[in-house]
Amino acid sequence: MQTEGSADVHIDLNRLIGRLDELARIGAIEGGGSCRLALTDADRRGRDRFVGWLRELGMAVRVDRIGNVTGTWPPGDERPPVMMGSHLDTVATGGRFDGALGVLAGLEVVQTLQDAGHRPGRPLAVGAFTNEEGARFQPDMLGSLVWVGGLSLPDALAQVGTDGCTVGEALAGIGYAGEAQVPGPTPHAFVELHVEQGPILEEQGVDIGAVAGVQGIAWTELHLVGESNHAGTCPMRLRHDPGYGAAAIATFVRDMCLRLGGGQVGTVGRIELHPNLINVVPAEATMTVDLRNTDAVMLAQSRRELGDFVAALAEREGLEIASRTVADFDPVEFDPELVARIERIAEDRGQGVRRMASGAGHDAQMFARVCPSAMIFVPSRGGISHNPAEFTEPHQLQAGADVLLQLVLEFAG
Amino acid sequence: MQTEGSADVHIDLNRLIGRLDELARIGAIEGGGSCRLALTDADRRGRDRFVGWLRELGMAVRVDRIGNVTGTWPPGDERPPVMMGSHLDTVATGGRFDGALGVLAGLEVVQTLQDAGHRPGRPLAVGAFTNEEGARFQPDMLGSLVWVGGLSLPDALAQVGTDGCTVGEALAGIGYAGEAQVPGPTPHAFVELHVEQGPILEEQGVDIGAVAGVQGIAWTELHLVGESNHAGTCPMRLRHDPGYGAAAIATFVRDMCLRLGGGQVGTVGRIELHPNLINVVPAEATMTVDLRNTDAVMLAQSRRELGDFVAALAEREGLEIASRTVADFDPVEFDPELVARIERIAEDRGQGVRRMASGAGHDAQMFARVCPSAMIFVPSRGGISHNPAEFTEPHQLQAGADVLLQLVLEFAG
Repeated sequence: MQTEGSADVHIDLNRLIGRLDELARIGAIEGGGSCRLALTDADRRGRDRFVGWLRELGMAVRVDRIGNVTGTWPPGDERPPVMMGSHLDTVATGGRFDGALGVLAGLEVVQTLQDAGHRPGRPLAVGAFTNEEGARFQPDMLGSLVWVGGLSLPDALAQVGTDGCTVGEALAGIGYAGEAQVPGPTPHAFVELHVEQGPILEEQGVDIGAVAGVQGIAWTELHLVGESNHAGTCPMRLRHDPGYGAAAIATFVRDMCLRLGGGQVGTVGRIELHPNLINVVPAEATMTVDLRNTDAVMLAQSRRELGDFVAALAEREGLEIASRTVADFDPVEFDPELVARIERIAEDRGQGVRRMASGAGHDAQMFARVCPSAMIFVPSRGGISHNPAEFTEPHQLQAGADVLLQLVLEFAG
Repeated sequence: MQTEGSADVHIDLNRLIGRLDELARIGAIEGGGSCRLALTDADRRGRDRFVGWLRELGMAVRVDRIGNVTGTWPPGDERPPVMMGSHLDTVATGGRFDGALGVLAGLEVVQTLQDAGHRPGRPLAVGAFTNEEGARFQPDMLGSLVWVGGLSLPDALAQVGTDGCTVGEALAGIGYAGEAQVPGPTPHAFVELHVEQGPILEEQGVDIGAVAGVQGIAWTELHLVGESNHAGTCPMRLRHDPGYGAAAIATFVRDMCLRLGGGQVGTVGRIELHPNLINVVPAEATMTVDLRNTDAVMLAQSRRELGDFVAALAEREGLEIASRTVADFDPVEFDPELVARIERIAEDRGQGVRRMASGAGHDAQMFARVCPSAMIFVPSRGGISHNPAEFTEPHQLQAGADVLLQLVLEFAG
């Protein structure tokens, strides 16, 4: 049996950490993190190093027209591969694991199998996808979205970044506008190892997350207009205070999420009052509400309840409240068989494992549109990510990469 | 009887409006308002015009060492005068009535009595006090505070303005560092006619406010520190969200004020979140709470309740909340006899009158420390002030100035 035979193979932790360290030095920032914003020169150098590693492992390198870089082993095997991967771009204050771990663990799986003289039944591929973070260009997960046909190449290339440069210009500028066609070929399966970027695994003392899906996301921007007044001379009952309105919405969002329970989360991360002075009842408030749930029905309910509350508040307080949807993504469910395999493999290896949802978006959710896909999470210390302080224990890196290795072995046959 | 004889005298509305218009053109801004920030060149030109009018009326002009300008009639009468007055400085986007009305109505009262050949039993004075607004220099009501001995001259002169200039430098720069001593001589009484700057008189259809006192003010700045987290990956129950904390405090302040009732008002005019991003649970929040009440006991209770709520919130949510008092003024009570006289005079004249508190600070509250003092309010359309749109109907200006005239006649005897 493949499964039993492969149980003795382990990835080389030192080699994996060595590659993580080497990559982190490209675009290094204070505190041990990296800044490799998508399609910048630092991103180019990260990609160059990745291509170098793919070549050292004798893999066939493919760069497509949106800059996604993949390597396949054995080269020349044209059957749909079991693909691993993630992204090499970071936010401006990125850590060393977000994205990099999924790409470098893929390399490590391939090299481990090569070293063990083990040739899987299907080809393996490792990919690094363009602009996953969305920190320079919108939308995030742009490269994987184009790969699966969710965004046309011309539309993707025309996206304008925070610095006014388009994706097309930046891609050509770093020499990664490749020739391979998009949408790309559909893999046999896609598996992404990633740091959790949240506190759940650490809190529960579990090293492996079997990610069953990605939360749906609804972002709403609210603009409240009331009546500015003197804080001393205007009686409470005559006020139309948009600052109070914003506060009432923020406490409603929190209370609603606790009441709905399950995976419902809601965040008011942004509030701006105008004129924002100690002794003036504000004239206007702008705020955002971020609602997420893995359950599409519950997410829709939370949006409906928010809308009802806002309408009643506007009426009661004499406020004009305009609402604008700025993001709206349905929940994603990963392949149940892959998720169950991840759980079983972790259990067989004596690892604590927890089935969970991803609160953040990832490239794997794009591949879930076209092929069986799943994700493996390892803990983030303190839940911290997008921060140089992002940290995962070495034994957790080992555990996650070994589960990835076993899953690929089983699935590639 | 003085009272009956004086009832036939009325101020000249056109002359009063003419002076208001002439003053408004000094430092005129778009929309019909004025910008005469304290001790600027525009303020100097306003003062120069005031001094000209005092001289035209044959009044003895006095400029003291903090720049307060007063005129007394008859000149040479050294007994304590019945003083009228207010201020000529404005905020950057000031209206044409705030301050100016109290000064120019004082001139109008003197000129009306002169024209009627009526010589009151006591001297009358009209004052314009330095930096009432506090828009350029702190504290507000600086000139009247120095007049009554509440702030020493050296301390006042050393105050640094928003532009880095001291009061002493600015005062010398416009030529209004006078020679008269401060603290100044105690008046027999002080009366200030002012626009309400709030909506109460208009809402109740009443043209005269008999101001019984000035609210006490407690300003608190709160700094909340929590734990920044990813809006998707951090479950509700693990959050320490200072943005939620700020919202909970803001809704508490509003609910508490409605519950305490009476004259209690509370405003959260300023909220700032950091990093203030749609998908990030904030790390920190800064906010202000402005509490006011005419009743010192109730004001103290509201502060205590706020403190208790904040302490319980910090404990429950795992937030660090630092609290800083940035202003703390006790309520002021005006002279009961003067207030009752204002009510009776208005009623005798068939004017609707309402006993009320001032929500804003005024020069009269400083004089209340040393002599019988009171204020007469006239309506502000829409409650709007500190805005070029500030407006009071001509017949309301007439009503207010006539009540001032009668009050002065009665009190001066």
